[in-house]
Amino acid sequence: MKNDLFLRACRRSPVERVPVWLMRQAGRYMQAYRDVRRKVPFMDLVKNVELATEISLQPYRRFGMDAVILFSDILVPVEAMGIDVSIPEGGPRIGNPVRTPEDVRALRVPDPASETRFVLDILERVRRLVNDEVPVIGFAGAPYTLASYIVEGGSSRQYALIKSMLYGSPRVLHALLEKISDTIIRYLRAQVEAGAQALQLFDTWAGELSAAQYREFALPYVQRIFEETRKLGVPRILFVNGCAALFDDMLESGAEVLSVDWRVDLAEMRVRAGSRVALQGNVDPCVLLSTVGAVEKEAAEAIAKGGGLGHILNLGHGILPTTPEENVAAFVEAAKKVPLAAAEPKSS
Amino acid sequence: MKNDLFLRACRRSPVERVPVWLMRQAGRYMQAYRDVRRKVPFMDLVKNVELATEISLQPYRRFGMDAVILFSDILVPVEAMGIDVSIPEGGPRIGNPVRTPEDVRALRVPDPASETRFVLDILERVRRLVNDEVPVIGFAGAPYTLASYIVEGGSSRQYALIKSMLYGSPRVLHALLEKISDTIIRYLRAQVEAGAQALQLFDTWAGELSAAQYREFALPYVQRIFEETRKLGVPRILFVNGCAALFDDMLESGAEVLSVDWRVDLAEMRVRAGSRVALQGNVDPCVLLSTVGAVEKEAAEAIAKGGGLGHILNLGHGILPTTPEENVAAFVEAAKKVPLAAAEPKSS
Repeated sequence: MKNDLFLRACRRSPVERVPVWLMRQAGRYMQAYRDVRRKVPFMDLVKNVELATEISLQPYRRFGMDAVILFSDILVPVEAMGIDVSIPEGGPRIGNPVRTPEDVRALRVPDPASETRFVLDILERVRRLVNDEVPVIGFAGAPYTLASYIVEGGSSRQYALIKSMLYGSPRVLHALLEKISDTIIRYLRAQVEAGAQALQLFDTWAGELSAAQYREFALPYVQRIFEETRKLGVPRILFVNGCAALFDDMLESGAEVLSVDWRVDLAEMRVRAGSRVALQGNVDPCVLLSTVGAVEKEAAEAIAKGGGLGHILNLGHGILPTTPEENVAAFVEAAKKVPLAAAEPKSS
Repeated sequence: MKNDLFLRACRRSPVERVPVWLMRQAGRYMQAYRDVRRKVPFMDLVKNVELATEISLQPYRRFGMDAVILFSDILVPVEAMGIDVSIPEGGPRIGNPVRTPEDVRALRVPDPASETRFVLDILERVRRLVNDEVPVIGFAGAPYTLASYIVEGGSSRQYALIKSMLYGSPRVLHALLEKISDTIIRYLRAQVEAGAQALQLFDTWAGELSAAQYREFALPYVQRIFEETRKLGVPRILFVNGCAALFDDMLESGAEVLSVDWRVDLAEMRVRAGSRVALQGNVDPCVLLSTVGAVEKEAAEAIAKGGGLGHILNLGHGILPTTPEENVAAFVEAAKKVPLAAAEPKSS
């Protein structure tokens, strides 16, 4: 591979500089994306192999990140489970939210090779076009986060419904999480077989849980997914938004890389993680709404705090749709400008 | 005072049992409140001395919490600064959001005795009617949280505008925070003169900041407010939602009590705080949407983790409007059921 900085950083191997990519790098902040998106409903777009391949490559061609991530949505395998998903501008909508044991029983564990074939086709095509210049990342939502959409019926601010289930009918929630886990294990294996060279699991909303709840309703399922995908030999990344109170538990997940949000101090997380995992992050996506100067400053600070070894520069959450493209360029360039010496760990 | 458990707990003095109240205990989950609210716009209600007094007392009369908190809104002093505030069902709206140095200069530091006289009248009346049965709590929003409303123009999910200001024009934000601090210091002093026997400062949205940002844009202003209200001799409580990464900095705030959200482990926070502060919290408000059994279990667990000395049982965020009243009753009773022995600290 021409540029394997990202894979080396995932494994905490020495690198010449810190690699960089951005969560949601293929998406709405790019004019090129909006030009395609205007004509096609979102869920049609993620199923259109040609267009989704094009969109996956757009940010790489324009900004030269060190990895390409599949353009898709975490709700794709959820739809294949038998959930009615639509994604209008206001955020995802679930037509048949799951609330009862019967609802859970009615869900299927889909076969990715037939029921989400298009995702595998996109990955194969992206791999071919990227032509081993940089690695290609596959991804999925983690069980708790997917369950929160499925139970709430869409995005939520309070997560009142899934929390009610968690406190009032924990067995129903566990049954749902189990079924989602079965789905995601198959889904991620199929992605690696189709060419994904790394995997990221998005447990975005697990940060709403207390540590005790995380250990009961999120971590065991994530651990099982990582256990069942270990033999595939690709690095696995775990992301949680609002991970400050969960970080020590996340160290037990089995992931090779923990992707952390901007609220935590990367240098402190580095110390707490020791040499157990690589870290990814953690610049506040809002920085990229301001000036090139601010982007350069915050990126340089994250690189310094990340310690150089086993750090992938990224945002602390997905890039915001209103981000100016020049600020994304500055973010990617910031990683490329910092040479080895400055990126080397200062101590420990 | 007939029942001073709350004040003793704030000072870490011995108590027979852990005192209990709920953030936003006067409000929408109560039928009695909705009956009053139906007829009166929200901002008129907080200015109506008779009705606001009645609403402040409703939860105490119905459930017998160990403290009464003033019914009001954190945006009341903001309106008096010259900001156009309305609070429809969907959340607060600011008619003239602050974005420039000129906008900040145009804001006034209001005189509470004339410009928010109604708040002081409500407090005096509540004090008289409570008749020293339990303490009366006054409150205000903290500067960063108020600034986030003022800059965003209302509630926000991403806080993109105030973050843009923070990264791009930090001096403008500091000038705004300074002016809000001047306002809040006067406002809280006036509340104590009118009869408030404790004060809570709500820095609800400071949990969106990194620790470094918290130390620059939130903590110094909170410290100044606590410094300037110290001589009033009443205990001061600091609340932040999402405090996990900020807790050690919050210990430096000067507050006698830290009110923490449900994501952190209360027993761990107890250890980290040592004997420096009392703790308030931290049951997930979503627990109160489920069953009486779940409420009793989670309340008992919080009481056990709080260690008995210097703990006030409360929620980790404001009570949700859809909470059944019987679950509030169960929450308050849970505190009253746990006797001294079980509530005593287990070690250290």
